[in-house]
Amino acid sequence: MPAYEDSDFGTEAAPQLQQQKSNGQQGTPSSFGQSLPVPGDQQNQQGGFNSIEVPATRNSIAQVDGYMHQLSLSPSMKDRRGSRNSFGASLPIPRSKRQSRLSSVHYADDGKPARPGMPPIQPTRDILASQVQSFESEKVKKAKNMAFVFDIDGVLVHGDRLIPQGQRALEILNGDNELGIKIPHIFLTNGSGKPEQARIDQLSKIVRNPIHMDQFIQSHTPMRALAEYYNTVLVVGGEGYKCREVAEQYGFKDIVVPNDIVAWDPTIAPYRVFTEEERKTSRPRDFSKINIEAIMVFSDSRDYATDMQIIMDLLRSENGRLGTMAEDPVSSRIPIYFSQGDMLCPTEHWTPRMSQGTFRIGLEAMYKALSGVDLERVVYGKPELATYKYADEVITSWMEQLHGEEKLPENVYMVGDNPASDIVGGNMYGWNTCLVRTGVFQGGDNDENNPASFGVFPNVLDAVQTALKKELGEDFRFEWSDANVNPVLSGGKDSSAIE
Amino acid sequence: MPAYEDSDFGTEAAPQLQQQKSNGQQGTPSSFGQSLPVPGDQQNQQGGFNSIEVPATRNSIAQVDGYMHQLSLSPSMKDRRGSRNSFGASLPIPRSKRQSRLSSVHYADDGKPARPGMPPIQPTRDILASQVQSFESEKVKKAKNMAFVFDIDGVLVHGDRLIPQGQRALEILNGDNELGIKIPHIFLTNGSGKPEQARIDQLSKIVRNPIHMDQFIQSHTPMRALAEYYNTVLVVGGEGYKCREVAEQYGFKDIVVPNDIVAWDPTIAPYRVFTEEERKTSRPRDFSKINIEAIMVFSDSRDYATDMQIIMDLLRSENGRLGTMAEDPVSSRIPIYFSQGDMLCPTEHWTPRMSQGTFRIGLEAMYKALSGVDLERVVYGKPELATYKYADEVITSWMEQLHGEEKLPENVYMVGDNPASDIVGGNMYGWNTCLVRTGVFQGGDNDENNPASFGVFPNVLDAVQTALKKELGEDFRFEWSDANVNPVLSGGKDSSAIE
Repeated sequence: MPAYEDSDFGTEAAPQLQQQKSNGQQGTPSSFGQSLPVPGDQQNQQGGFNSIEVPATRNSIAQVDGYMHQLSLSPSMKDRRGSRNSFGASLPIPRSKRQSRLSSVHYADDGKPARPGMPPIQPTRDILASQVQSFESEKVKKAKNMAFVFDIDGVLVHGDRLIPQGQRALEILNGDNELGIKIPHIFLTNGSGKPEQARIDQLSKIVRNPIHMDQFIQSHTPMRALAEYYNTVLVVGGEGYKCREVAEQYGFKDIVVPNDIVAWDPTIAPYRVFTEEERKTSRPRDFSKINIEAIMVFSDSRDYATDMQIIMDLLRSENGRLGTMAEDPVSSRIPIYFSQGDMLCPTEHWTPRMSQGTFRIGLEAMYKALSGVDLERVVYGKPELATYKYADEVITSWMEQLHGEEKLPENVYMVGDNPASDIVGGNMYGWNTCLVRTGVFQGGDNDENNPASFGVFPNVLDAVQTALKKELGEDFRFEWSDANVNPVLSGGKDSSAIE
Repeated sequence: MPAYEDSDFGTEAAPQLQQQKSNGQQGTPSSFGQSLPVPGDQQNQQGGFNSIEVPATRNSIAQVDGYMHQLSLSPSMKDRRGSRNSFGASLPIPRSKRQSRLSSVHYADDGKPARPGMPPIQPTRDILASQVQSFESEKVKKAKNMAFVFDIDGVLVHGDRLIPQGQRALEILNGDNELGIKIPHIFLTNGSGKPEQARIDQLSKIVRNPIHMDQFIQSHTPMRALAEYYNTVLVVGGEGYKCREVAEQYGFKDIVVPNDIVAWDPTIAPYRVFTEEERKTSRPRDFSKINIEAIMVFSDSRDYATDMQIIMDLLRSENGRLGTMAEDPVSSRIPIYFSQGDMLCPTEHWTPRMSQGTFRIGLEAMYKALSGVDLERVVYGKPELATYKYADEVITSWMEQLHGEEKLPENVYMVGDNPASDIVGGNMYGWNTCLVRTGVFQGGDNDENNPASFGVFPNVLDAVQTALKKELGEDFRFEWSDANVNPVLSGGKDSSAIE
């Protein structure tokens, strides 16, 4: 005989539960007669089915909604302003390193083929170019008031393969134009998991153009700023220990990776297969005596199960101390940062694979289910404002290196293949956006949800040439020639100006 | 100059986006003066900070709510009734196999120590016991009208360690009582990942009592019924290929495991490290030519990243055909089943680890984020009704084997340590629930949310003895003695009845 009346349950019970309970309350199968015939007998009558069906206790439609109820924004933001979690309202980004002016005439590492026994060709052209530029001060002014921002994959390269027009477009911006002038351009990717220099060396080889460290932003580059705020951090994602290396280069002082924690206490991730090699290369410590102050997801997790469990343990701990469980899930929770929010990322597989954004959403749901509160987290990368603000920093500093003027050009052109990140971000930030057909976008005249403001182009070369013509004139020539310095030609121009 | 007016965005933009956009629209840093000082200059004035802060584009509070909006239940259930997904409304469970009556006098594999050269002791006691039982027909009738259901971990054992009172409790129910009668009892666990027989052999050794296959239910045991409905299924979770083995024993005809798919196309899980051993032991096929009809999560995933990606690909495919993407995410979606819904599971780690329920919730959120629709899924195991219904099937069939009567006893006692699964389920199903203090429950007089209906006991032996006394009388003796057959004693009883 059941100990409870329906009324004891009625209040909270979900519809399905209600039904199941009112079935269940009576206890003996015969009493299921109404809603469900006695299994055994029914089978005997109908003869020989090997299974019977039973009403499901649980709503068959995912009910994570319950877990997903979010904090109303304003109060929570107000409460947390000034707390370590307040970066949700404002993200720190690094000031771009200012180089010595000298660096702007420094061509040692520009990747151009050396000519044994001969002087480098570059300076010569620079002298000639400066002569031309002195005649064309108006055009030069305009050329110095524009800049390009390039997405990489699907615009300049496919993985390790060059998109041919990419090489040419960069040659033009690197000085192969009628002014012999360098037009500032930077590279802005949601890629991650490798030190910047390693990526640059690889990219620069593929596009056969020099690329400088200070022209390059990947998803976690702006996270360099976070190194000022935390001493001990957990760095998640990436291949092997590459992201530990990245974090070290960013100036993080005390970097922990999941392997260090698994090596210290393998029971934290019961199903993790931990190789001897991993054990050797990890740096175990007694993490019950250390407060991890923040979690930084730098790149795609290679082991969701282990990383999600360790992140969960830290988020639920008392100020990042493993082996503790916080009384209040919010006040003593350490902050978590994600280097970008893409749901999917294109790979060699025929359809894109799940990425950091999907990982984050799964983690958020699990966290809400276990803790009962919403997870507060910060996301960098396109199309987040912080990443575009940082791009301004980088363009400004690059302008100084190229032209000795620390100013942000007024006309910025973003060339990308992904409407959902490159274009939406650029549009909202007020850049001129160019959508190319060599990558993700395969649509019609323009993207419906996030149309490119400057238009759609078959490839990056078309986009760059169209932009240059708009700013520098339809007759602008995409080629350097020593003939440009012909005094007669320039003289003629000047005289014609006099008439 | 931005191509769009605010109004172009206003409609969809989230509060944070609004703010960011209205910042972003102008494009040049100077115009950020109001909301954000020019980074470079500000730093120079204040002198030497290495970072600046930027308003976040993205709400820092998890916004999965958006993705999590669920279908209203009734329509979706109505729509899908009769579809392959309709099990959401009713779960199939197997009819318990009926044994030959002979099996009730079959003691070969009861695990009792054999006595070389001597006849087995059991039959002798059976003969004596049947004499006693013939005198005590009333008590016998009551003894045959009750049954016990035991949770295992935290009640009878801790992992591989016996909880001493567990052995004694089972001895009493196996005939060491004044009637020498066997009182039906079954074992109901949310455990998974091993064939039933393997678990039984292990458990039976630890508790030093015979346990029969037909007394044992683990989380995926009722899923045997699904073998009738599908030909080719994906089986997820568990160690190595153990769950493939389980599924084979359940009669599934064509079983695929994630390793088979990874071996066929490693690009499906880009970060999976696939060992030579795994390659050798997997069974790759051309899965672009096979429809996988259902997904069965039998046990905890050992590799979330790979399993979640493969499940996602299948859920979004055209009727379970890898290499396809369904036009309509719902109509051609294959069903997915989970063997149990526990969020956490106790391990040797100091605090419980995430389990199938947490995995499922993360997967549901990712699925909603990618597909825009709610995932429909079915969950077995305690406290789901289907599992309790199946327990009735098993008790009934065990009654037949013990006493030759295919009937369900009226008084069922569930002994468990976990209020959230054992007790809530038993209460709602109308069983008498006994909460023991040897496992999860560490609370006061009774659990607040799910109080045990028959009460809280220090251990399983107390619970069993109290229940037996309630049904069979306070004077019921928990010990068999050949003296019980003393005709005088029984004669005396009879005569006293006559006076």
